[in-house]
Amino acid sequence: MPGGLLTDMYEVNMAASYLRRGMTDQATFSLFVRRLPADRGFLIAAGLEDALRFLEDFSFEQEDLDYLRDVQGHGAGTLRALADLRFTGEVWAVPEGRAVFAGEPLLEVTAPIAEAQMVETMMLNHLTFQTSVASKAARCVLAADGARLIDFAFRRTQGVEAAMAVARATAVAGFAATSNAEGARRYGLPASGTMAHSYVQAFPSEEDAFAAFAADFPDRTTFLVDTYDTLSGVRRAVDVVRRLGLTGPVGVRLDSGDLGALAGEARRLLDAAGLRHAQIVASGGLDEYEIADLVKAGAPIDAYGVGTKVGVSADAPYLDTAYKLVAYGDRPVMKLSPGKVNLPGAKQVFRGPDRDVIALREEAPPAGCHPLLVPVLVDGRRIAPVEPITVVRDRCMSELARLPAPTRALRAPRPVPVEISLRLRRLQDRLRGTLSERLADPADHPATGSW
Amino acid sequence: MPGGLLTDMYEVNMAASYLRRGMTDQATFSLFVRRLPADRGFLIAAGLEDALRFLEDFSFEQEDLDYLRDVQGHGAGTLRALADLRFTGEVWAVPEGRAVFAGEPLLEVTAPIAEAQMVETMMLNHLTFQTSVASKAARCVLAADGARLIDFAFRRTQGVEAAMAVARATAVAGFAATSNAEGARRYGLPASGTMAHSYVQAFPSEEDAFAAFAADFPDRTTFLVDTYDTLSGVRRAVDVVRRLGLTGPVGVRLDSGDLGALAGEARRLLDAAGLRHAQIVASGGLDEYEIADLVKAGAPIDAYGVGTKVGVSADAPYLDTAYKLVAYGDRPVMKLSPGKVNLPGAKQVFRGPDRDVIALREEAPPAGCHPLLVPVLVDGRRIAPVEPITVVRDRCMSELARLPAPTRALRAPRPVPVEISLRLRRLQDRLRGTLSERLADPADHPATGSW
Repeated sequence: MPGGLLTDMYEVNMAASYLRRGMTDQATFSLFVRRLPADRGFLIAAGLEDALRFLEDFSFEQEDLDYLRDVQGHGAGTLRALADLRFTGEVWAVPEGRAVFAGEPLLEVTAPIAEAQMVETMMLNHLTFQTSVASKAARCVLAADGARLIDFAFRRTQGVEAAMAVARATAVAGFAATSNAEGARRYGLPASGTMAHSYVQAFPSEEDAFAAFAADFPDRTTFLVDTYDTLSGVRRAVDVVRRLGLTGPVGVRLDSGDLGALAGEARRLLDAAGLRHAQIVASGGLDEYEIADLVKAGAPIDAYGVGTKVGVSADAPYLDTAYKLVAYGDRPVMKLSPGKVNLPGAKQVFRGPDRDVIALREEAPPAGCHPLLVPVLVDGRRIAPVEPITVVRDRCMSELARLPAPTRALRAPRPVPVEISLRLRRLQDRLRGTLSERLADPADHPATGSW
Repeated sequence: MPGGLLTDMYEVNMAASYLRRGMTDQATFSLFVRRLPADRGFLIAAGLEDALRFLEDFSFEQEDLDYLRDVQGHGAGTLRALADLRFTGEVWAVPEGRAVFAGEPLLEVTAPIAEAQMVETMMLNHLTFQTSVASKAARCVLAADGARLIDFAFRRTQGVEAAMAVARATAVAGFAATSNAEGARRYGLPASGTMAHSYVQAFPSEEDAFAAFAADFPDRTTFLVDTYDTLSGVRRAVDVVRRLGLTGPVGVRLDSGDLGALAGEARRLLDAAGLRHAQIVASGGLDEYEIADLVKAGAPIDAYGVGTKVGVSADAPYLDTAYKLVAYGDRPVMKLSPGKVNLPGAKQVFRGPDRDVIALREEAPPAGCHPLLVPVLVDGRRIAPVEPITVVRDRCMSELARLPAPTRALRAPRPVPVEISLRLRRLQDRLRGTLSERLADPADHPATGSW
């Protein structure tokens, strides 16, 4: 889908109007999260890779143009202009895998205003969702305290494409594997998959099912033990391992009941049978809170299958993201809508050891700080190759390690303080003053200020 | 994506094992919602159309098979069997747009077990998400009490495909239009789109922006009035309408602040200017609760733009769906996992005037009841043409009209009572008894019962 119509219709209408009027000045839009959801001390930036691919491929197909003519009534001039429209601008962005906080631009687009406007919907879509999931997944990784995590979300993600994004975002956040076959193939991730209850039920007995599966997959046998009675299931698994003389990796999966208590009893049964190497996998509606409770209780669980609640970021299924015009031509702009005032101008975020500073892009970094946004697209083309997931994951892992403990806390976390640079505050104040003054005069109502 | 790998890896492994063992008996799987989310008195069935398209197109591509051989280590026999695998089975389902309740099968698949197993992930994915969104959207329609609703969700849905499903599901639930350009084109829905704050900001003044937009789109001008000050914005919109002598449909959109109070004042300004026909559109983080409050307060709002909270079904972003084996060969099956016991056998739901009855499929309907599930796919092919969205929407509208008031309530709703037929209860009891008895005998552990 090259995607001219992958947008909200008002973007098309506004772009048509800009193009018709010869409004081709450079516009800068800033994409940021207004507020962190409850119980989020940080976010992990994700979605940039898909956003950049969209920008590079952006164009209208003939069928899109036919629709805009036949159904939406756009004229020949507009259609000609849209047919030629490509994304030719520049993008600065926070690399995927880095931690970000409220108000900090994740991405800034600078391009002729029609182009920058048209891509709003997709920039928001990719970054909002993937950042939500990467952040939720990172919380699970912190909660698991070294235990392995497996993405089990595919069946209840919000669509198939979402499942692929979840496979990738959970890998970025440090998950060890995914159950999603296409996701594993597409992104080169370890695939994980054993048996469902239906497999056990399809055989005359649980023991028959276990023996059949072990015979068919002797090198990757994890027995799902809770179809009828979990501990009987563990005993049967032990019998099968002994009977077949399995020496490869084996495990049991617990999918219901009191996972902590059952894991303890399963561990005792396995150890008593000499299967100290057998892994215990737990699954069933888990999220970071339940994982943290199990870890805290000392449950001997080696791996957690984590599905739906991470795949839809259940407690925070969206972020309060915005994509706001901050400069047009040579003028910084802002709006005054209640609760939605934004920071004008192209910006940079400087990260220090114990605080972030949002500043104008051209400002020098404060002492001991480094810039978070880097140029990623120039003249509509990427300036660096696609990053391997391993690189993004390593970046995320070192970010998580560096976050202060109160910021990493699962409940009532404290985000890192974010300051606004003096120059940026002065610009905002000046602009607000100018706008408010002119608002008071009903005859004169300019929407923009000056630097 | 024809989609052999659009599944969880364990489905592939189980299918491989079934095929290798010549286990080709017919299996019936039942897809249902275990519990309704909080504040859901009913669900609106959706997602079947995509599910059926998936089943009709199901097959492995060569690159899928190569991956299963090279990376997952499946052997030549398995690959040959998978290469030939198509969905040849039968599906009974609740038509899209009908109301359903906890425990009621939304869909039952009967096919050789490898086929029925392989499609689990996608059946769950399509029905879970689209039913979530259609149900949330239907609640908005009930809350709006006749005002028009517009889908504004695209920018914050969980991926692009999700946005398309949302455009369709909200249309099914009675939304009047969508902002999603591709969704509108794909499903033939009315597209809605005016201007963003950035458009207003890109012009030297708000009045210039309004005049430009009205000149470019004189037949569909809705002015976004809250960029700087909402009521000043309304006055400027009035000025522009008068100055340009616009006689077509016009409107103002309020996107922030106290929407009820601002709508009242905007209405007075518009009426005083003789623009009684001007529409007032409200948007900004709305959901069914806020719409209901605005309607109750008598806010003169003609249309609501409803975005993110419906597009991700924010308060219930997933459903507790299950796809459970209920029969294999000639034997009904069930599992005993704590909290996850299911109803055995192929089933039917009979809907009566004040209750539903879940029964075995072959049972006769109780007096005054009609069956909810109908056959939709036989021998892997649809038995009826694709339903136009208008047909599905009409069905949904008459369902909503028939629901009892306590079931439609937004808060603390009372679902329609769902009973289990005597025959089904007896089968479940008998099977539970057999399973429990045999569980007590560690030497004998059959997973299936008899009718």
